[in-house]
Amino acid sequence: MDALRVGLIGLGTVGTGVARVLVDHADRMTLRSGRDIRLTRVAVRDTSRPRTIDLPASTLTTDSLAVATAPDVDVVVELIGGLRPAREIVLAALRAGKDVITANKALLCEHGDELFQAAREAKRCIAFEAAVAGGVPIIHTLSQAMTANQITGIEAILNGTSNFILTEMFQKQAAYEDAVALAQQLGFAEADPSMDVKGTDAAQKLGLLTLLAFGTRVTPEQFLVQGIDTIELADLEYADELGYAVKLVATAKLVSDKLELHTQPTLVRNDRPIAQTDGPFNIIGLTGDIVGKTWYSGQGAGGMPTASAVVSDLIDVAAGRARLNFEQLDLWGSRAPFPLQPVEEINRRYYLRMEVEDRAHVMAEITDALGRNEISLASIIQHETPEPEEVASTDPRPRFVPLVIMTHRTSEGRLRAASQALAQLGCIRTPWVCMPISD
Amino acid sequence: MDALRVGLIGLGTVGTGVARVLVDHADRMTLRSGRDIRLTRVAVRDTSRPRTIDLPASTLTTDSLAVATAPDVDVVVELIGGLRPAREIVLAALRAGKDVITANKALLCEHGDELFQAAREAKRCIAFEAAVAGGVPIIHTLSQAMTANQITGIEAILNGTSNFILTEMFQKQAAYEDAVALAQQLGFAEADPSMDVKGTDAAQKLGLLTLLAFGTRVTPEQFLVQGIDTIELADLEYADELGYAVKLVATAKLVSDKLELHTQPTLVRNDRPIAQTDGPFNIIGLTGDIVGKTWYSGQGAGGMPTASAVVSDLIDVAAGRARLNFEQLDLWGSRAPFPLQPVEEINRRYYLRMEVEDRAHVMAEITDALGRNEISLASIIQHETPEPEEVASTDPRPRFVPLVIMTHRTSEGRLRAASQALAQLGCIRTPWVCMPISD
Repeated sequence: MDALRVGLIGLGTVGTGVARVLVDHADRMTLRSGRDIRLTRVAVRDTSRPRTIDLPASTLTTDSLAVATAPDVDVVVELIGGLRPAREIVLAALRAGKDVITANKALLCEHGDELFQAAREAKRCIAFEAAVAGGVPIIHTLSQAMTANQITGIEAILNGTSNFILTEMFQKQAAYEDAVALAQQLGFAEADPSMDVKGTDAAQKLGLLTLLAFGTRVTPEQFLVQGIDTIELADLEYADELGYAVKLVATAKLVSDKLELHTQPTLVRNDRPIAQTDGPFNIIGLTGDIVGKTWYSGQGAGGMPTASAVVSDLIDVAAGRARLNFEQLDLWGSRAPFPLQPVEEINRRYYLRMEVEDRAHVMAEITDALGRNEISLASIIQHETPEPEEVASTDPRPRFVPLVIMTHRTSEGRLRAASQALAQLGCIRTPWVCMPISD
Repeated sequence: MDALRVGLIGLGTVGTGVARVLVDHADRMTLRSGRDIRLTRVAVRDTSRPRTIDLPASTLTTDSLAVATAPDVDVVVELIGGLRPAREIVLAALRAGKDVITANKALLCEHGDELFQAAREAKRCIAFEAAVAGGVPIIHTLSQAMTANQITGIEAILNGTSNFILTEMFQKQAAYEDAVALAQQLGFAEADPSMDVKGTDAAQKLGLLTLLAFGTRVTPEQFLVQGIDTIELADLEYADELGYAVKLVATAKLVSDKLELHTQPTLVRNDRPIAQTDGPFNIIGLTGDIVGKTWYSGQGAGGMPTASAVVSDLIDVAAGRARLNFEQLDLWGSRAPFPLQPVEEINRRYYLRMEVEDRAHVMAEITDALGRNEISLASIIQHETPEPEEVASTDPRPRFVPLVIMTHRTSEGRLRAASQALAQLGCIRTPWVCMPISD
């Protein structure tokens, strides 16, 4: 059979990894797919830049669109990220009759509809194993291995950068800012880490998994998304004292045929697989109505794990599997999507950490404000503080002490009403910390 | 497209689960595969037996071979287990032009070569996701999602029954026999549990994974296989004291281009995913040269998890993916298989628990016997025992006390030589316990 000719767009960490695998392991590619897989065109930003991989100068160009539509390219691998010009490049490639492989979750989350339709019309496919959770083959799993099931729940760590930062803070007793700086230094975080630490990246990945698992199209603006950028070391330590770890958890689950959806820093019991997943790793728990609970984990980012996913997609394209898979993916609105559960109705337990004024009756005021909103308390931590007369202070301002509360189950709506009531008390320093607790 | 017509052979726990999914979720099958999937023939041992699932009487027969070759059957699902008549049935089905789905690891491990060749010659496929680790889609993962990689290591719990028994012993302080009885009562173990507790079942599954990952054909007689039937509660407790759990671990890994292969009760550090996998669950760690370490876990046995795997194979057959996948599987000797590492050269740390005579110089004799075989000690546990004069005993026989030793790395060959030397000392009660320690 003819060789499969690859046009690679973007030669960053992942692109270099892909090129290296194709060049160094050409025999393996042929064995696994039944065809040679050959890198014929590579688009880069600057052809003169020194690189760690040696490619024939004739394959390099700065013209991405030319690679996307080149006659000696059968499949286009888009690894530049972002929405523009990635969208135009992918559309051009599909219209020129190329299959497309992409690691671009932002693009698929934002323009997936349009791109999937374009692929369908062109009778081509889009493969995107690398768009979610790097080395964890969750797209293969969801779209092929779990097809007997209606997925009923997804619970996952989908952002390796955030997880690295949280792990670093807890294990090294580091402040958030120091952990971010280290993550940047080690290449786990970008110069501007906001997509990672604000939860957007994880939420986009959750959106893609939600589309595959539930047929529901969502973008991060439509559900609860919080990042780890407001978490303090103290929260990790209180959580640990209570028997929990704090993780950025992306959740999608069916509750009475509605879809509960959120990506938030969450307390997870220490004996759960998610709590035990440290460093730049991802983990995904899938529950199916037939199979029960299953778990998948591996390195979530990094050049080589993500290259592994891209190359497995290339082998699927070469072997003819990718197009069959794409045709069977439930992306065409062929069933009624599950509606989103209104955010106020989401029902969970919560962790609250607040700095409260150290005077008589404060605890009564707080528990009363919670109680009036039908929120009952499961546990409280208030560590012993020195007696007021023992504190040698001439500061006339009120003294504040930390108070940690875990609530019983309540709704997000009640919690928000209680938060307004608490804010009006005046005995709590703002802002305070509020995190859900995973079941 | 025409419906895919299914002939089901065996209506036990898994077979009933498969039938139930096909009947209860017919719409889902059509949506996921693009075709109706219809159960047309079912072979059972006794058609008059009452069942938990209602099937038209006309579909039931006791003639397995007739189902395997029936004109209104496109794909045969073999769920009777064992070698005979399963082998004849599968061969007959393939020769009659049917695709085959099987959960029968013993059959594939023993006769895989013959059956895979027969399928190839008939231009049909054999799909066997359910043969290894029930609800964990490890065959899909190995044969599709990890194709960019040379797998360099597999480390797994592949037998849910053994894992349930070990968990029960440790958590409930139960004796081995009591834990086995409970496993039987709950349906996790058969009346004759020997395939499970002697390690054969896990070793057969490891054989299948080894064929897929390394191209090497092995049956359990060719490598180290031990079961959990010699483990005592005391071993689980000493291991815990040392910071380890005892698990039945199946291992295949490349060491200098040779394949180290064994299935044995093994000490695994408590912070590792394998140590944290309890009850009837399976977990598989796959290391790839590109992706690094990845983990997969879920329920390893039971009707519905295994039915999920069978039905995903059915959907693959219906959608045309199964045949493409089968063609690309590396089952045809298309590459040089990795040779097995000789058992004497396997290099690990070991845990030894022995009852030793409680007299002067015994420890010197034991450590000398180990030292002469170049085995050095990493740690020793000998708990304080009462002073001899405090023990009111008229028993003239020597008193024995437990001694636990963890060695530094050594070879299986040296360990065996040391064991012979220890046996000759006469101060150790036989048999003693020896388990490897996972890295």
